[in-house]
Amino acid sequence: MIPAAQLAETIWREDTASRWLGMKLEEVRAGYARLSMRVQSHMGNAQNVCHGGLIFTLADSAFGYACNSHNQRALAASGAIDFLAPAQVGDELTAVASEVERAGRRGVYDVRVTNQAGTTVALFRGQSATVKGKWIEQP
Amino acid sequence: MIPAAQLAETIWREDTASRWLGMKLEEVRAGYARLSMRVQSHMGNAQNVCHGGLIFTLADSAFGYACNSHNQRALAASGAIDFLAPAQVGDELTAVASEVERAGRRGVYDVRVTNQAGTTVALFRGQSATVKGKWIEQP
Amino acid sequence: MIPAAQLAETIWREDTASRWLGMKLEEVRAGYARLSMRVQSHMGNAQNVCHGGLIFTLADSAFGYACNSHNQRALAASGAIDFLAPAQVGDELTAVASEVERAGRRGVYDVRVTNQAGTTVALFRGQSATVKGKWIEQP
Amino acid sequence: MIPAAQLAETIWREDTASRWLGMKLEEVRAGYARLSMRVQSHMGNAQNVCHGGLIFTLADSAFGYACNSHNQRALAASGAIDFLAPAQVGDELTAVASEVERAGRRGVYDVRVTNQAGTTVALFRGQSATVKGKWIEQP
Repeated sequence: MIPAAQLAETIWREDTASRWLGMKLEEVRAGYARLSMRVQSHMGNAQNVCHGGLIFTLADSAFGYACNSHNQRALAASGAIDFLAPAQVGDELTAVASEVERAGRRGVYDVRVTNQAGTTVALFRGQSATVKGKWIEQP
Repeated sequence: MIPAAQLAETIWREDTASRWLGMKLEEVRAGYARLSMRVQSHMGNAQNVCHGGLIFTLADSAFGYACNSHNQRALAASGAIDFLAPAQVGDELTAVASEVERAGRRGVYDVRVTNQAGTTVALFRGQSATVKGKWIEQP
Repeated sequence: MIPAAQLAETIWREDTASRWLGMKLEEVRAGYARLSMRVQSHMGNAQNVCHGGLIFTLADSAFGYACNSHNQRALAASGAIDFLAPAQVGDELTAVASEVERAGRRGVYDVRVTNQAGTTVALFRGQSATVKGKWIEQP
Repeated sequence: MIPAAQLAETIWREDTASRWLGMKLEEVRAGYARLSMRVQSHMGNAQNVCHGGLIFTLADSAFGYACNSHNQRALAASGAIDFLAPAQVGDELTAVASEVERAGRRGVYDVRVTNQAGTTVALFRGQSATVKGKWIEQP
């Protein structure tokens, strides 16, 4: 079995969007991923807080690493988020994704996004579907 | 009553994130908003398609303009998205948000994201909550 | 093609739960279903209003008839509901399901549940997945 | 502080719908509830498995006991469910609700519904909102 951390490095090299947004890949294990992102000034919306879509994007990236951590390619079929506290420009956000269940081709993953004070900014739940193909083909 | 298009222009000037992502404000009416975004090469993920979070972000922006179109400040409390078709780099995405219901401080809005061929890329439903304050104070 | 109304009658005869809950099959067309249910006294919860689960159940039944209206067997993969107004004992609830999108094996359906005064009680969105088999085999 | 188990008994006496559906109140602690329900023959749908709405109803009841376990009255604002495996007539379903987060008047609760073999039948996430009033007034 390919270690999840090695897989994550392989995926990360291709994951232009997450890198462009300034995310950092903190830790990936089987069924688990932790990513972080600093809220930059260009991420603010008209309410002067971080655009909710970018909080979702961080959570969605964490979800993506967790649901692909078994080397079987998986896609996000759907996702839902509860915004519980605003994220301010300058905040350091951390998203922790954990596998809730896998059943056949489907998976359910929960992600909690917190700020540097430990306050929960958002809760995300995502549904994945596996597709054909491995990230790293084994001999 | 302040026209929704005028409100939208006011909000747009402060909406750094949506402008940074290259979105265009196409049309806003009461309870309705249409925005567009071209998928740029830095928006691709490791599956070589547009990061789902950025599709959500476009939908969330359209939702934001629609739920703020009555001049009463409103926030996104939650949102959910179904990803139905991938968006490719170079695609021109359009998000159309429509008000489904307002009940007290709560609102529900649906957003359909399509590509230039008219294919539905994603369906979003968002829940808003009004907060104190107007975007433009009336004399 | 088998008419949706004929299909619905076939499904209804096997749909013990919906009949047991006192639902009525009002109208089914391709991609559309309307069912009604009176809130009976045993449906009340501790807040003395209709148990939200039974409102969901009515919406889920309407969703089921709409997503099976093409004669291809389909299952509910997931569903989400916003409870916007309470339903009182004695209320006559109507659930109208409409098809939002079909893409491959997946479908998305919206259901609005209203009471006899036309007030929206709940908004439901369901995700279906087709499975093998027809409801009525054609020669 | 009123013990959660005592509160639950008070609520249960008024909770006609859950009792009518044959649910059993197994255990309630602060932020936690466990209920069970046997799938009876009249709960079957046209696919000959338990109507998904009734699985949601069980999960929603567990959610209700968990979000009211602090003696502050709370309502379900919304809920979403993933159906992962069918429940057969005769199955003994157990729903375990746990508090994920409380933030101001809002709460988020997760419920896992399993059958007697331990298979996960459904995953539910509910959003609550507190309202005025206590279940048991303290002197």
